[in-house]
Amino acid sequence: MIKIAILGYGTVGSGVASMLMNNKEQIEKVVEDEIELSAIVDIRPFPEDALKSIITPNFDEILNNKEINICVETIGGINIAYKFTKQLLLAGKSVVTSNKELVAVHGEELLEIAAENHVHYLFEASVGGGIPLLNILKKELASNRYSKIFGILNGTTNYILSKMKESGMSLKEALAEAQELGYAEKDPTADICGYDAQKKIAILSDIAFGVTVSPDKVYTKGIEDITPEMIRKADEMGYEIKLIGYTEKKEDAIYIFVSPSLIPKDNIISGTHGVFNSISVYCDYADVMTFTGRGAGSFPTASAVVGDIITAITEKPLSKPLWKCAPVTVKGLKDLGFRYLDNTDFPILV
Amino acid sequence: MIKIAILGYGTVGSGVASMLMNNKEQIEKVVEDEIELSAIVDIRPFPEDALKSIITPNFDEILNNKEINICVETIGGINIAYKFTKQLLLAGKSVVTSNKELVAVHGEELLEIAAENHVHYLFEASVGGGIPLLNILKKELASNRYSKIFGILNGTTNYILSKMKESGMSLKEALAEAQELGYAEKDPTADICGYDAQKKIAILSDIAFGVTVSPDKVYTKGIEDITPEMIRKADEMGYEIKLIGYTEKKEDAIYIFVSPSLIPKDNIISGTHGVFNSISVYCDYADVMTFTGRGAGSFPTASAVVGDIITAITEKPLSKPLWKCAPVTVKGLKDLGFRYLDNTDFPILV
Repeated sequence: MIKIAILGYGTVGSGVASMLMNNKEQIEKVVEDEIELSAIVDIRPFPEDALKSIITPNFDEILNNKEINICVETIGGINIAYKFTKQLLLAGKSVVTSNKELVAVHGEELLEIAAENHVHYLFEASVGGGIPLLNILKKELASNRYSKIFGILNGTTNYILSKMKESGMSLKEALAEAQELGYAEKDPTADICGYDAQKKIAILSDIAFGVTVSPDKVYTKGIEDITPEMIRKADEMGYEIKLIGYTEKKEDAIYIFVSPSLIPKDNIISGTHGVFNSISVYCDYADVMTFTGRGAGSFPTASAVVGDIITAITEKPLSKPLWKCAPVTVKGLKDLGFRYLDNTDFPILV
Repeated sequence: MIKIAILGYGTVGSGVASMLMNNKEQIEKVVEDEIELSAIVDIRPFPEDALKSIITPNFDEILNNKEINICVETIGGINIAYKFTKQLLLAGKSVVTSNKELVAVHGEELLEIAAENHVHYLFEASVGGGIPLLNILKKELASNRYSKIFGILNGTTNYILSKMKESGMSLKEALAEAQELGYAEKDPTADICGYDAQKKIAILSDIAFGVTVSPDKVYTKGIEDITPEMIRKADEMGYEIKLIGYTEKKEDAIYIFVSPSLIPKDNIISGTHGVFNSISVYCDYADVMTFTGRGAGSFPTASAVVGDIITAITEKPLSKPLWKCAPVTVKGLKDLGFRYLDNTDFPILV
């Protein structure tokens, strides 16, 4: 019997609870064991919730419960999530998370603690929502050497750019609509200015190239200056403007950036609209492969989290941390020889 | 030390050998063990080959060599491949293959023998070339319930249809060009008439729905009757004609077919041209996800084979066979309520 606890009962946490309850039988068939959602930690009260009997505000109950094997950290942010994750790993519990911020900043240390304590620290849901991109890079395609990865990593900005293109709206109008529909947050800075994509492309670099790229080293430009005119201009040239996260390895340097970029219309990434993500991976043997799916949302993110729970149950933890702070030079957009859209800093890719 | 043998040194077998040699270090890092390509079995002589010292015509050498843990079956076809695979599994060796015909026809039995002998029988490369679709269904997305899977499973016919669309060529002309470029075989029946896609969609059904669908139960229509006029007509309506493998589960029945189908132009599958494959998977939590990549070729197929070798080394074999001949009703195209292109049997999807 595998006992699971969820920390943080928000959008993602409640999606994970839903999947663990509704697809229990399916998951038990795959892991060849029984599973139980044993506890949910949240300081808020949920008096009407069907799972209220297992909701507790007391983290120590979970930390000290030796029967709980796997904890899902869906608190988000760094401070508390960092402290709790560390304590759980040290207590010999595997931790599965969707927290890209924590992984991008403290991933290396947490992976090391996990390896030392023979448990898993897994974070598929931190990049690409429901698309199982990190596991595909770590497992299925792992016999390949990767040269470059790029794509749409943020659904909010892709929704806004799609809307601007389709309707001729300004950024401000499209953002207002995205906020109304719940696709953008009240403070949209992290999405609009590219900080969300910045963390995700840093994590992708770490996994693909086995290095540690600090997110603050990533050249990052958001969509804040994009006008309907630029979109029209790109369209006339045969391109669509997308907010792209890009990482490439050449010799001992990593070239990494987040920037609005021009993608030719016949490319899959260019044809990916709305809240979807689409990422291309370039491999030495498998060539180019593109993965498209929902980059956010309660249920798709839950799918990635529960996929990691399955891995935590069925696979041995790594004996060494997945990536190390290998000496690597981080270069930015301007070190790659792209052409640019007239009067802008936006590179023309592919 | 893991010792590997390759059976059949043709297009795929030689790609696997290349990858095992060139990416040895990378693979060893992932499996945390040493690997060695110890033998290649082929009745043909390869006097000029760099690996000639390990090539042997004698299968029994491998069968009786207790040090060989994993065999790659890239012989193809049924007879000999079936006999060898059975013997190898019974001898306690894991077998990894790209042989879709053998898997579609005898997969259930071979999986059972593998489970009984505590070894792996893996066949990622039998569907979708380099796209790790089967493993994604079996692992990363396995906490989802799948409702439907469809897409382009045959690169040859997709090349021909793309060429016809782009140039207005007849099927005969486009086929001749594909043959010249090595994208189509001298006898193109298996591709053109949909038998290749038929086996692949049967395997996908088996994996996704845990049943056994015999390929000869699959309603199968190839591209042989497609004319440039039909392609033009579809284009005017906003669609592209693709040879689609389709499987859907509704209650206790599987609806499965291979047929030229109309896909709307804004769909990723419609935008997939040339020898590429593109497959959409519909899940209850992760929603729709689309995987695009090279569906054939020596190196992409090798990537899928070596991915399975990594699984065979790092994961425990299943204690029960992956799918069972569960009682299932197989229905065809006509049981799904699609509209059709005028005067044809070609359904309009999505």
